[in-house]
Amino acid sequence: MVKKALGGAGLRGQVAGATRLCTVGQDGSGLTYVGYDIQSLADQAQFEEVAYLLQHGELPTASELDSYKTRLAKKRELPQALKDVLERIPASAHPMDVMRTGCSMLGVLEPEADFSEQDDKIERMLAAFPSIICYWHHYAANGKRIDTDSDADSIGEHFLTLLHQSEPDPTHIKVMHASLILYAEHEFNASTFNARVAASTLTDIFSAVTGAIGTLRGPLHGGANEAAMEMIQGFNDPDDAEQKLLKMLENKEKIMGFGHAVYRTKDPRNAIIKDWSRKLAEESGDSKLYDISVRCEEVMWREKELFCNADFFHASAYHALGIPTALFTPIFVMSRVSGWTAHIKEQRENNRIIRPSADYTGPELRKFVPLSER
Amino acid sequence: MVKKALGGAGLRGQVAGATRLCTVGQDGSGLTYVGYDIQSLADQAQFEEVAYLLQHGELPTASELDSYKTRLAKKRELPQALKDVLERIPASAHPMDVMRTGCSMLGVLEPEADFSEQDDKIERMLAAFPSIICYWHHYAANGKRIDTDSDADSIGEHFLTLLHQSEPDPTHIKVMHASLILYAEHEFNASTFNARVAASTLTDIFSAVTGAIGTLRGPLHGGANEAAMEMIQGFNDPDDAEQKLLKMLENKEKIMGFGHAVYRTKDPRNAIIKDWSRKLAEESGDSKLYDISVRCEEVMWREKELFCNADFFHASAYHALGIPTALFTPIFVMSRVSGWTAHIKEQRENNRIIRPSADYTGPELRKFVPLSER
Repeated sequence: MVKKALGGAGLRGQVAGATRLCTVGQDGSGLTYVGYDIQSLADQAQFEEVAYLLQHGELPTASELDSYKTRLAKKRELPQALKDVLERIPASAHPMDVMRTGCSMLGVLEPEADFSEQDDKIERMLAAFPSIICYWHHYAANGKRIDTDSDADSIGEHFLTLLHQSEPDPTHIKVMHASLILYAEHEFNASTFNARVAASTLTDIFSAVTGAIGTLRGPLHGGANEAAMEMIQGFNDPDDAEQKLLKMLENKEKIMGFGHAVYRTKDPRNAIIKDWSRKLAEESGDSKLYDISVRCEEVMWREKELFCNADFFHASAYHALGIPTALFTPIFVMSRVSGWTAHIKEQRENNRIIRPSADYTGPELRKFVPLSER
Repeated sequence: MVKKALGGAGLRGQVAGATRLCTVGQDGSGLTYVGYDIQSLADQAQFEEVAYLLQHGELPTASELDSYKTRLAKKRELPQALKDVLERIPASAHPMDVMRTGCSMLGVLEPEADFSEQDDKIERMLAAFPSIICYWHHYAANGKRIDTDSDADSIGEHFLTLLHQSEPDPTHIKVMHASLILYAEHEFNASTFNARVAASTLTDIFSAVTGAIGTLRGPLHGGANEAAMEMIQGFNDPDDAEQKLLKMLENKEKIMGFGHAVYRTKDPRNAIIKDWSRKLAEESGDSKLYDISVRCEEVMWREKELFCNADFFHASAYHALGIPTALFTPIFVMSRVSGWTAHIKEQRENNRIIRPSADYTGPELRKFVPLSER
């Protein structure tokens, strides 16, 4: 067998399996889900059409979409024991720890008995994740026990309804569709690969997703839009942003929301969310964060030839939707669970346990010395 | 960059990184932890010496071991909010779901603020995991809220004390040391690799371990000793075992506890746990399951040249210790958390995010068809 030393190299460029779900960076910039370009999906589809596409391999017909959305709407309510657990999580907790624990507890209470239940459990997670984060958010912040059901037409609308406890603006719902579509799937990124490694032992779907949430939690993976938000909130106006950004570059500080491990010339998701961020600024009449973000984009390109990735304009867009910064990465979870679970299904279809080898760099065989002689 | 198609092949034989912690199957049968042969460790060390070795790279001196055990003993008690969560988990739950959720909730309540806390958090998990499973076990079975603290000298003794609510037999404590040592570490097995993928995003240590627990839960990974137990309990005596086993082989049924993905001629852990199983049979005067297990070993070797792996004689050994079958895989967790966390530390030292590529096997680029035209 051919061995190749890759210590610390993160399997970059190494093929670890096959997928029919996604291409990333073909021609340096493209992103497709099951054959469809990301731009066409984000412009024309609802998130539920994309989730269905990933889960079943084809876009739904009108009647398939209707049944899918009806099933999802029925799966929003949380069991009492899960609410009890969420109430034990302090307000100081990391929201991704809430998602990880909420998903794990859902899997305790409603386990996947066998793989014939996988589609039902996927729909359950898609429907329940917004309820989990919003229930905890309101209880932790002010002891309020919200109703986790709603009449919302979509997952994005359900989230905004529960978060704001009021009917969302129609434009805001459209932004949620686009945003959830942009984050839905991204080939063998670390959290998805983590889910596939777990799935390869034929574990249950909640275990695999729980691990993926914990993986996305890492600052090298999820969380870039939160970091971008924190940065742009520290800028007073475009000129102030430019000055401070130049200073940060001079100090070689890490600037979040720019560049990408796979894309080389641009991130195809940026133009889409940037456009929504601009529309939201126009509608609200408050373009401060958008203008600051545009200046950051110009400066980073001029100085470093670094382009905005999907995360950067998400910061100003989510802010315009009134979403607290701490909930940005949990929205990533609500979306990416569609991709993770599609990969878990795919892994199960043609499975072999993922068990690589390691280069040994430790001590040679040595003789045991009893405790009394050490 | 060289690409190699490996769809479904589970990265077998492919090097995915470097480790100084372990060798598996050198010369077809060996197992070493940081340079020490498994046999010498299992014969002469306590589990805490091995956990220390994995965590710090060297066996402890007597005073180092003393401080280590003192620290571990102080970290056994569970916070009330975690007990509340465990009380919400029904008796019908999968014990590995309990471990996964318990670990996740511990990470919620006592998060790893930064990597300088990693050793403290590792000790916390080593100390608290027996408390988590035993607290749930007694509460779920009969509503009893046990004290999760104990004066036990070791992790294995603490577990037996909490499980049986009495002082354990000295031989039983020795068996726990040996068993926990045998399961502590095994290079890039699926759960450990899963933990390293998570750690490579620089996520917190509880997230990485929670995912590893979910991965170990899969029937292709943990759980073989439970399956072996269920099988041998169905045999009345050695002759009955032989007859039924031959029938199972004829029907091409999967027999758990035999063979290994990496070892070719024998599993070096088998002789050690087999020897303990024999001693326990002699001490108790009840050798039924041991005798049945020995016959199974003979038949499988004679018929298929398949050898017992670490799991097979664990079934009769754990049974002799009065451990319910459902708790076998949680004991694996109590042990392997020492290896997982050592790998997480190692990954953090020389990190690059683990992000492989995939062979695309999906549809060519296709034109989006609006919902109304589908």
